[in-house]
Amino acid sequence: MHIQISRKEEERKKKIKKKVGKYGEHSWATAVAWEAGKPLVIEEVEVAPPQAMEVRLKILFTSLCHTDVYFWEAKGQTPVFPRIFGHEAGGIVESIGEGVTDLAPGDHVLPVFTGECKECAHCKSEESNMCSLLRINTDRGVMINDGESRFSINGKPIYHFVGTSTFSEYTVVHVGCVAKINPEAPLDKVCVLSCGISTGLGATLNVAKPPKGSTVAVFGLGAVGLAAAEGARIAGASRIIGIDVNPKRFNEAKKFGVNEFVNPKDYDKPVQEVLAEMTDGGVDRSIECTGNIGAMISAFECVHDGWGVAVLVGVPNKDAVFQTHPLNLLNERTLKGTFFGNYKPRSDLPSVVEKYMSKELELEKFITHEVPFSEINKAFDYMLQGDSLRCIIRMDA
Amino acid sequence: MHIQISRKEEERKKKIKKKVGKYGEHSWATAVAWEAGKPLVIEEVEVAPPQAMEVRLKILFTSLCHTDVYFWEAKGQTPVFPRIFGHEAGGIVESIGEGVTDLAPGDHVLPVFTGECKECAHCKSEESNMCSLLRINTDRGVMINDGESRFSINGKPIYHFVGTSTFSEYTVVHVGCVAKINPEAPLDKVCVLSCGISTGLGATLNVAKPPKGSTVAVFGLGAVGLAAAEGARIAGASRIIGIDVNPKRFNEAKKFGVNEFVNPKDYDKPVQEVLAEMTDGGVDRSIECTGNIGAMISAFECVHDGWGVAVLVGVPNKDAVFQTHPLNLLNERTLKGTFFGNYKPRSDLPSVVEKYMSKELELEKFITHEVPFSEINKAFDYMLQGDSLRCIIRMDA
Repeated sequence: MHIQISRKEEERKKKIKKKVGKYGEHSWATAVAWEAGKPLVIEEVEVAPPQAMEVRLKILFTSLCHTDVYFWEAKGQTPVFPRIFGHEAGGIVESIGEGVTDLAPGDHVLPVFTGECKECAHCKSEESNMCSLLRINTDRGVMINDGESRFSINGKPIYHFVGTSTFSEYTVVHVGCVAKINPEAPLDKVCVLSCGISTGLGATLNVAKPPKGSTVAVFGLGAVGLAAAEGARIAGASRIIGIDVNPKRFNEAKKFGVNEFVNPKDYDKPVQEVLAEMTDGGVDRSIECTGNIGAMISAFECVHDGWGVAVLVGVPNKDAVFQTHPLNLLNERTLKGTFFGNYKPRSDLPSVVEKYMSKELELEKFITHEVPFSEINKAFDYMLQGDSLRCIIRMDA
Repeated sequence: MHIQISRKEEERKKKIKKKVGKYGEHSWATAVAWEAGKPLVIEEVEVAPPQAMEVRLKILFTSLCHTDVYFWEAKGQTPVFPRIFGHEAGGIVESIGEGVTDLAPGDHVLPVFTGECKECAHCKSEESNMCSLLRINTDRGVMINDGESRFSINGKPIYHFVGTSTFSEYTVVHVGCVAKINPEAPLDKVCVLSCGISTGLGATLNVAKPPKGSTVAVFGLGAVGLAAAEGARIAGASRIIGIDVNPKRFNEAKKFGVNEFVNPKDYDKPVQEVLAEMTDGGVDRSIECTGNIGAMISAFECVHDGWGVAVLVGVPNKDAVFQTHPLNLLNERTLKGTFFGNYKPRSDLPSVVEKYMSKELELEKFITHEVPFSEINKAFDYMLQGDSLRCIIRMDA
C-alpha cells in the first residue's frame, strides 16, 4: 500500500513541478487561506516529516464543514492566517514519528479535530471524550510537540487548523487525533464521519438515547441535525419531528427519517408550546443542532416532564445565556450537552465506520456534491448558498 | 393489630371526651391551622370514612418538614385555611374504601404527599415518578374523588394538605399515596422516609449516581442535604464536600459522611471556582438542596466538564431564573432535577425502609427532637430556630 502511494506520488509531484515550477522533497499541493473570507489558493507547501507522536497522512478525500467556513470567515474569533483549513477527511498513513506504535504506513484513517491521548482523566473516564491533551483548540495554529507548524512556504509558516488541516495532499497530525479504520471502507464516503455526521449521530445514539417507539425533536436540519435524525431512525423512534425556519429543508429531511415538520415562523407562540400540544405534553428527546440560543431554550422546554432529555449540540455565540425557570428542571427534565457526539475518536470511530459497512447507517444521502481539489472554493460557495449537506473534495483530481 | 388499635382507641376517645367535652363516632384529635402563621390548635375533628380508592389511617408518628412550615406561613402562596398540615408520617390502615385491594386494615404504611396511580404515562414510565393523577398539589385542600374534605368540625370543612394531613390521629388518604411497608419497621424512625429523607437520598442514589470513590458536593446541610450526603456515603463517595453559609451545621454533617466544608461567605469569588480549585477542575456530582437560585447555578457550574452531573432538589422561588453559559453544557455537563428523589412512592419506598432495616441507611441521626402531639407547636419552634433536623411528633402521647 505504501509503495503504491509512493509511486502515484512521484507522478503527482512531477505534475506539480510542471505546474508550479518548483519542487521540494516534502512539498505538496495545499489550499491556503491567506486572509479571512478570501478564496483559498492552491499552493505548493512544504509539509515537514512527523515528529514524536505524530503521523504524516496522505489525504485522499476531504469534505467541508460549517466550522471551516466559520473560522475562515473569522468574524469574532482571533484570526490566525495564513492557515490551512479542513478537518473532515479520509486518508492513509504515509509515515510515522518516534513513539508511534498504534499506526503504520498504509493504515486507512480518519483524522479528527479533537483527540484521545488515552492517558488523561477524560480518556480514562468512560463518560468523557474531552481529552485534556488534545481537546479541540481553534486558536492554536501549531503542533503541540514543539509549538511550531509543520507547513511552510519558503521557510515561512502556514498555520494548522484544529490539528488536522486536511485541505492538503499531505498533513501532519498528532497520533491521538487519528482513528484507524477498516481498510475496506470507502474513504470517499466515511470521510464525513470525521466530524459533523458523527457529532449528530452520537448526540442521539450516545447521549439522548431515545427508546424504541419514542418521539424525538430535532432542531436544525443541516447535516448535523439530519445525522441526529438518522440516529433517531436507527434507534427506532416512531415520531421524528424536524424543526427549521427554512421549509426547503423539509423534503430532503424525509430521507433521514424525519416524518413531521414544524416551522417556528408559522406560529405566533413559542415552538416548545406547539410541540407540547402535538405530543401530549412534550417530546421524549430533543436534539438542538443550530447553536441559536432561543432554539436551545425551546429544545429544553419542549421535552416531557418526568423523563424528557434535551441534548445540546450546536455551538452558541460567545455572549449567549441559557435561561429557564428551574421548575422545568425540577419536573425531572434533563439537560445535557455533547461534544463530537460523545465519541472517543480512536476508540469509537472504527465502530461507527462498521455501522456504515453493515448498512445500518446510510452516508450517501449526506453527500450532495463533489468537486476536485482544484475547485475547492466551489465547496465554500455551495455551503454559503445553503445548497449542500456535504461536498466531497477529491484530492487526486 | 386492628383490634388492638380499636381497644386503645376506646380509651383514647374517652380521654378526649373528657377533655373537649364532646365526642362523635368518627371524631379524633387533630392539629388545626386556623390561620397563616398562628399556632396550631388541637381540636376534635370528624374524620369521614374513606370513599372509593381511599383509606383511613391511624397515624402513630408524624414529623415536621420545612414544606409544612412554608405553607403554614403562607407567604406568597394561595392561603388555604383552616387546614390540617403534616405529610411525613407512619401509621396503620384503619379502614379501606371501595375498590381498594392492595391494602387491608392493619397494614403498616407511610402516607406520601405525591402518588402513584400505576395507570398513567408517568407511572408506566420507568424514568418518572410524577404521577399525572396524584402528583403533589399544594393548592388543593380536598380529596379528588368528590372534591370535598373528609375533615369537619360541626359540618364545616377543615382542608387537607397535599393529600396527607398527618397532624391528626386519623386521616384519609388516596390509596395511591400510601406505601405499604415491612410491619417490623419501627414507625417512629421510618416515618421520616415519607418526604425529606427519601428526597435527598434518592437524589443521590437514583439521579446523581456517584461512582465509588468519586467527589460529591452537597449544597445546603439541612435534613434533605444531609440525606443526600448519606446517599453519597452509601454509594462509596470518597470526598463529600458540604457547602453551607451556616458553619454551625458542619459539625453535625460529619455524622453523614461529609468530610470537607466550604462556607461561600469565606471567599470573595464564586463558590464554583473554589470547588473547581479544590478538585482539579470540578466535582464529579453535585446536589443542590437549598432552592436558592445562586446555589443552583453554582451547583451546576462546579461539576467537572466531560462527566459532571448536577442534580437540583431544592424548590426555587416562583420568579427565579436559572442562567448559565451554554458552553458549560456543551462541555458535557449534565443538569437534572428530581422530585421526591425519583422514588415511586408505592413501588420504591418499601425497599428504602429495607435499607434502614439492613442498617445500610441510618435514620436515627436525622431525629434530633421528639414531642407529644399536644406540644406540636414546639416542633415548629425548633425548626424555625434552625435547631432541629427532624422532630418526631408522637400521636399517642
